[in-house]
Order: sequence, then structure tokens, then C-alpha cells
Amino acid sequence: MPLPTMKSGLSFLMAALRCEIDALEQLARTSALVGTIGRLVHALQRERGISNVLLASQGQRFAAERSAQIAECLRVEQAVRACFDQLETDASRIGNGARLFSRIAWVLPGLDGLPELRRRIGAMELGAAEATAAFVKLIAGLLAVVFEAADGATDPEISRQLVAMFNFMQGKEFAGQERACGAAAFASGRNDSARQQQWLHLIESQERCFQVFVEFSAADLVELWQGTQSGAPLAEQERLRRIACAAPAGVALDTELSQTWFDSCSRRIDAMQSIEARLAADLRRICEQKTAQARAELQVQEALLAKLALEAHTPAAIFFDEKPATDPPGLPQAPGSATPYGRQLERSILEMVQEQSQRLQAMSDELDTVRAALNERKLVERAKGLLMAHRRLSEEQAHKMLRQTAMSQNRRLVEVAESVLAMAEYLPNEDALRAPRT
Amino acid sequence: MPLPTMKSGLSFLMAALRCEIDALEQLARTSALVGTIGRLVHALQRERGISNVLLASQGQRFAAERSAQIAECLRVEQAVRACFDQLETDASRIGNGARLFSRIAWVLPGLDGLPELRRRIGAMELGAAEATAAFVKLIAGLLAVVFEAADGATDPEISRQLVAMFNFMQGKEFAGQERACGAAAFASGRNDSARQQQWLHLIESQERCFQVFVEFSAADLVELWQGTQSGAPLAEQERLRRIACAAPAGVALDTELSQTWFDSCSRRIDAMQSIEARLAADLRRICEQKTAQARAELQVQEALLAKLALEAHTPAAIFFDEKPATDPPGLPQAPGSATPYGRQLERSILEMVQEQSQRLQAMSDELDTVRAALNERKLVERAKGLLMAHRRLSEEQAHKMLRQTAMSQNRRLVEVAESVLAMAEYLPNEDALRAPRT
Repeated sequence: MPLPTMKSGLSFLMAALRCEIDALEQLARTSALVGTIGRLVHALQRERGISNVLLASQGQRFAAERSAQIAECLRVEQAVRACFDQLETDASRIGNGARLFSRIAWVLPGLDGLPELRRRIGAMELGAAEATAAFVKLIAGLLAVVFEAADGATDPEISRQLVAMFNFMQGKEFAGQERACGAAAFASGRNDSARQQQWLHLIESQERCFQVFVEFSAADLVELWQGTQSGAPLAEQERLRRIACAAPAGVALDTELSQTWFDSCSRRIDAMQSIEARLAADLRRICEQKTAQARAELQVQEALLAKLALEAHTPAAIFFDEKPATDPPGLPQAPGSATPYGRQLERSILEMVQEQSQRLQAMSDELDTVRAALNERKLVERAKGLLMAHRRLSEEQAHKMLRQTAMSQNRRLVEVAESVLAMAEYLPNEDALRAPRT
Repeated sequence: MPLPTMKSGLSFLMAALRCEIDALEQLARTSALVGTIGRLVHALQRERGISNVLLASQGQRFAAERSAQIAECLRVEQAVRACFDQLETDASRIGNGARLFSRIAWVLPGLDGLPELRRRIGAMELGAAEATAAFVKLIAGLLAVVFEAADGATDPEISRQLVAMFNFMQGKEFAGQERACGAAAFASGRNDSARQQQWLHLIESQERCFQVFVEFSAADLVELWQGTQSGAPLAEQERLRRIACAAPAGVALDTELSQTWFDSCSRRIDAMQSIEARLAADLRRICEQKTAQARAELQVQEALLAKLALEAHTPAAIFFDEKPATDPPGLPQAPGSATPYGRQLERSILEMVQEQSQRLQAMSDELDTVRAALNERKLVERAKGLLMAHRRLSEEQAHKMLRQTAMSQNRRLVEVAESVLAMAEYLPNEDALRAPRT
């Protein structure tokens, strides 16, 4: 069996490369989805802010702005739905497809419920806090899709970019929640200690997200980001934060500052949107470059295969030689082995396999490192799951419980999650709750 | 947009399930490959032992046994190649396909080189040590394919079984190497300290592998295993180990014990083969059960979708309700919401999504835990890669260097690997080696 067997080593080398190309093309689609979700989240964040003002003013202000913003949301929503459908047609090719689709299945009823939510807001049937909570929940569902996209990436460079992007989007969402929290505080003319705690928590959470973004981003983008995070707008926002949060709870706040606060936050959030667009564009470019690179390599291998098909040769036992495959070719041949040409060709294939294997290994190692950055969120999700199972809570209730513990103990959410996981066996189990022992 | 949008939440629920089914079917194929590779490894281990005796006896003994064993090897090799080719046709569906195929591409030239290796052995052109080294290398390549199969499994229960199986196969291979090492020592009539060190190392390595196997296996299989690992054969082997390893280096050994040693080891290794067959059968059964279970669940969802297609309803904003989705259905309906039927259906879909999402999360958590057991090997591979890059070594040279350090410092291979990784920056880099600075 001279030719076909030798060919098959090379053909698996190519199969490996085709898998990489498939994965990269899939990542390009997922990345496009992430970019589009970013735009929808931004639009929904604006709609949330506008709806708040509308509800707070009893429908007097921002009615026109709201209509325009809803139209914008619907437009981007269609684009997101189209991306979802596109992914579904390639379902079987997505590595962590099950989890990604499960997240999409979770968020779609939220998008479906938007018309009804908007009707209630328009009819003043909801308070500002309820409306905010609804948008927060929907945006959290969308960000969970982005998280799975980041978690499922198989290329370390793309994964790195997706981790940066997820953290940036999550940080921006905390900034949006801070805008709503502060606007409500200033509008009501006073702050209380629960809101102060929540506010400080939102500041801390967003800063942590942006730290991860900075850690995982290219230097030029970090510079751009830091440029938007200094100067007058931030100073203004920090002054207002101090006024509201450093004052003793219950002290009166100047209601006039509500608008100032809102505008100052919005400028900062709009600046974030331009950074996010850059992140999305960079991600697209990286996907394209990587795919082109893998395709070029595949062509080289295909050419080698074609050459191999022309030249008959006897397979030698190069594999078993003690000499490293990296020896320069053209060394004197061992007696009893195949023709020099066959040996050299075999050696070059072994070298290619070894290079590929080392490259894949290095990629896998780097991927582990990058994905460790997603671990915090996973710990929080696990702790939530534990509470849901052991205390029969809904997801919101579990999250609220963790968040309140974090606020009252002045600890980070992930620290509380770690404590919950560590004391898992002390939690009551579900059976005990259902049928208490006598 | 009443119907199609509500449908789409459910259709992504189903897409998630279809991804799971796809992954399970792929795992069933990979598992079949692992079982077949196990049989080939066993056949090659026997051929290695027989070839050793043939070479040691100058072709006087085991010539007929060798012909029969080669025929058996060729038969199983064809089955393994058929599995490889089968995998290649589904290339794009395999999660870690690139790494799996890269390992296959690496081992195929080894299989291709077997006829030439056998010719050299038959012509007495090789020493016993060289022949053993060649088989060791080929078997290591086959086990690397099994490792990737275990590392790529996306279902925790199947992953657990694959981790047990990989470690069992690796342990069995160390036992096979110990057989060769001991047979050579007794046959030569003396032991030296290098061989004693290598021997003890092989004992320790195989015991560590079997520990992991025990940790990850079902109780009944562990019991079966422990039954084969006690009594007369093991006592005999331990006695011979003591005679050869506890004696001062250089002391004469009874050459007659060579056959006793070989037979005692072989009985134990053949018993291992029956455990391995059980592992493979269990793996097949688990894959079938899991696939059947996922298919049944998909049918439930398809039935629900069909029901949904018959009943028109208006999507409500259930998603935004504060109440946990686990509330019993049939609660009083909030005013202004859709029909009770629509609400209830929507709620049951949200519940299904939530259950699925929790199940996937739990699976992913457990998978992380199981895969941590594969980490030791990954650390060794990383250290090897580092040495290859920084010191321009071949893979064998790097492995030999690590192994010798472990033996001389009496440390475990993984500990040496960790030290190498920790001191990475102290290693000379390749450029420095190429063009030393003046």
C-alpha cells in the first residue's frame, strides 16, 4: 500500500486545518452577532433612559423621543433576529451550540414581550423602577448570549477580543444602570442608604469590567478609551457622584441636578458606544485575517498533496527514526531505507504535522488562560444555580439575594458566590423543603 | 407578529437540543474509535513482547507466534483506519476536530512505517531496545489520539468514562513497558542502576494512572479490577520486582526468571484487557442511553411546537414578570395580559428553557471538574513544547530530558514539568542559540 496510506497522513493534516477554517468562519458569524447585539443593547439602554423620564414626568416629556427610539430599537432588533436565524441554520457546527442556543431561547420571549412592555409604559401602568427592571433583565439576557459566544471561541486571539468586548459591554450596562439609579435619586430630591449602596456597587462593578477590558485590549484602543475617560465630563460625573453618595443618607438633593446628571452620564455612555464599535470592527478584521491565513496554509498543503499524487514512493520508517524531524534535509540516507526523495517528502510532512500540533497546543494553552477571565461570572452563575435548586428561588431572586449580601457585607459579588459554593453542603436541600422531616 | 416570534423561542430550545444530540452522536463515533484503538494497542503490545523475544533469541524463538500476531495487528489496524476515515467525513462536526485530526495525522506515518519496521526486525537489523522504542513511540501516538478524544468530550458522564479509559490504557501501556524492561534485565542476567530507576518509574507511573481510573470508574468495575489485582499473579510479580530492584545494582540475576517474569506480567496484562473491554462496552451503552434520552426530549418539544402551531395566541410579557417561572400554573392572571392559555403556554416554555439552561450549566461545571484530571498530561506536553522551542530539541529528546530529570531527582514527571514551566524565562531562547551574541 504505497501511495494511499502516505496520502492519508497529509489528508488528516488538511482535515485538521479545515476544522480550524470551519471554526473561524463560525466565529466570524458569532462575532457579527455580538456586534449587532451591542447595537441593540445600546438602543435599549437609550429607550430605558427615555422611558424613565417619560414615566417620571407622567408622560409630559420625551414622548416624541421615545417613538423615534422605539423605531430604532425595532430596526436593530430585526438585525439581531436575522443573526439568530442565521446561526440556527449552521447549528451543528457550533462548538458550544447547546448553551448558546439555550441563551437565545431564553432571551427571545423577552424580545417578544417588548411590545406589551412598551404598551404598559405608554399607558403609565408601570412605575419607573419596574420599567427599569424589565429593561435590565432583557439586556442581561442579551449579554448572556455574548458571554456564551466569548466562552465558546476556540481561537485565543478572537477569544481575547471577545472577552474584552463582553466586559466592555457589561461595564457599559453597569454605567447605564448607574445613570438610571442616579437620575431617580436626583429626581426624587433625596438619597437613601439602600440606593447609595446600590450606586457604589454599580460604580465598583463597572470599574472592574473596564479593568478586564483594558487588560485584554490592544494598546491603541486602551489609549483611545483612556482619552474618553478623563477631562471635563468625568470630573462632572465624579462631582455629582460625591454629592449624592458621600452625603449622609436622607439629605436633600437638588432636583435640578437630575438633568445635569443624565446628560453627563449620557455623554460618557455615547463615547463608550464609539469604543464598542471599534472593538466590533477589530474583531471582524481579526476573524478575516485568521481565516485568510488558514486558507493560504490549506492551499500549500493541497499543492503538496498534488505533488505527492504524481510521485510514487515507498513509505519508509522515518517515524521511528531517532533523529529529530527538524534536522536539515539532505543528510546522508540510512542504508535500507526508501528513496531519498520519498524520505525527504515524508520528513517534510512529519515536520508540518509537528508544527501544526505545536501550534494547536500553544493555542489551546493560551485559550485556557484567556477563558480564566470568564471564570468570575461562571462562579456567580454556579452559586445562583445552587441557590435556585436548594432554596427553590427563581433566577432573579437568587441573584438579588447574592447582590444584597454583597452590598450589606461590602464584598464583591464573586466573593459572596465563592462563599455560597464553599458552604454548599450547609444549604437545605429541596426535599427537606418539600417534605420537612418530623 | 403573534405566532412566528413565539415559535422561535421554542425553536432555539430545540436547536440547543439538536446540538446536544449531534455532539452525542459524534461522541459515540469517537468512543467507538477509542475502543478500537484499545484493541490495536493491545495487539501491538503483544507484538512488541514477541519481537523482543525473537530478537533476544537471535530469531530462534517465537517466529510462528510473531507471524500470527502480525496478522492480528493488521486486522485491527484496518478497523482503526476505517474509524479514522469515518471521523474525517464528519470533520466539521467535531468540537476539537483540529487537535484530534492533528494527532491522527501524526500517528498515521507510524502505522505506514510498520511494514518496514517489521522487515528490519525480521532481518535482525535492530536491537531489542530499538525495536521496543519504536513500538513505544507508535503506541504513545495512538494514546495521544485517545487523549484528545477524552479532552474533546462535551458530556460530563461520557468525559468521565473517557478519562477513566485513557488512564487505564496509559497504565496498561506502562505495565507493558515494565514487562519489556524486566524481561530485558532478567534475560541479560544483571540489572544496573539506570534500569532500576526506569523500572521503579514505570511502576509508579502505572499506579498513578490506575488511581485515576479507580477514581473515575463505577463501583462494580473498580471491584472487578481490584479482584484481578490481588492473589497469586500479583504476589509473584511483586516478588520478582523486589528481586530485581531491591538488590544492589550490578548483582547477577537468574536468567531463568526471564520467562517466569514475562508470563506473570502477561497474565496481569491480559486481565487488564478484559477490564478495558468492559470500559469500552460501558462507554458505548452510556452514549446510546444519553442519545435516546435527548431524542425523547426533542420529541416532547416537537409535540409542543405542533400544539403551538394550532393555537394562535398573543405573546404576553411573562418574561418581565417578577414571579418566578416555577410558580404553579393556573394562578390568577394579571389584568391587561394575553389570554390565560397563551400565558400558560408561554410560562411552560420559559420553564423548559430555564431547566435546559440549568442542566447545561451543571453539565459544563462538572465537565470542568472532570477535565481537570487531564491536566497533568497537559502540563507535561507544555513543558515539552517549551523545551523543543527553546532548546531546539525533538519531541523525544525533550521527553527524555524531562524523564531523566524526574528519575535522577526522584520526582514525578508532572512536578518536573511544573518546574520547567515556572522557570521558562530562564531558558535560553532560540535566537540566542542560533546567533550567539558577541
